[in-house]
Amino acid sequence: MSAAAGEIEEGLTFQPKFDSEGLITCVVTDAGSGELLMVAHMNAEALRKTIESGDAWYFSRSRKQLWRKGESSGHGQRVVELRVDCDQDSLWLKVEQQGPGACHTGRRSCFYRAVPLGQGAATLEFREQERTFDPEAVYGKK
Amino acid sequence: MSAAAGEIEEGLTFQPKFDSEGLITCVVTDAGSGELLMVAHMNAEALRKTIESGDAWYFSRSRKQLWRKGESSGHGQRVVELRVDCDQDSLWLKVEQQGPGACHTGRRSCFYRAVPLGQGAATLEFREQERTFDPEAVYGKK
Repeated sequence: MSAAAGEIEEGLTFQPKFDSEGLITCVVTDAGSGELLMVAHMNAEALRKTIESGDAWYFSRSRKQLWRKGESSGHGQRVVELRVDCDQDSLWLKVEQQGPGACHTGRRSCFYRAVPLGQGAATLEFREQERTFDPEAVYGKK
Repeated sequence: MSAAAGEIEEGLTFQPKFDSEGLITCVVTDAGSGELLMVAHMNAEALRKTIESGDAWYFSRSRKQLWRKGESSGHGQRVVELRVDCDQDSLWLKVEQQGPGACHTGRRSCFYRAVPLGQGAATLEFREQERTFDPEAVYGKK
């Protein structure tokens, strides 16, 4: 293992590795239940604002803009703990999810469908069909 | 919302969205404890092999090759459930982790360090200092 790899994996210096688009992947779980809520991305500015404020800020790849989670929906996320992985190219946010859910489709978690195993052309199966809020009421017509 | 977006978010057709490098992000948790073990990536072939076999296959971005988790370490992952998120660009694998850990550094989880909040130049804090296995014994000298 190189000295640089050793420092990244075993050191105390936070040196997040952003990808070619300047983003780092964030896994977001509910600090209480441990449930996986969503996967999102941060750029350097979103990460700085998150660390400073304790509110989750992301960078929207589709809208190409910085975004404080909850600024449209009111469903913000207070960060209870922020972790980084061995090679410092992924982050884990344990959050207190405010409001009824994290997903823009109106569900608590974005991961509401399962892919059956052992099959070829897979048909998805809903695991959480019901919404916890009405996305049209929260975000307006899309 | 467009018809295409509606089908991706609410439909039953699995249409995973690979990024410009042909990869999709995978969040991997312990099916028993719910603990976040690692973040990895799959290409289309790794995803097909995972669905067919029930063993976790990934694509290594550093080694640029398909890789069955555990083929070097013996620490494989049996997939208990596979989920996809709303916009079908992230996967969640709930796995039975075989052996003492998922991380190549010798720990159970890759997320063994925390980034303190409310500080500027952040110094990492270890949350799991101890290794659950000796990586040199498992992988050989690196």
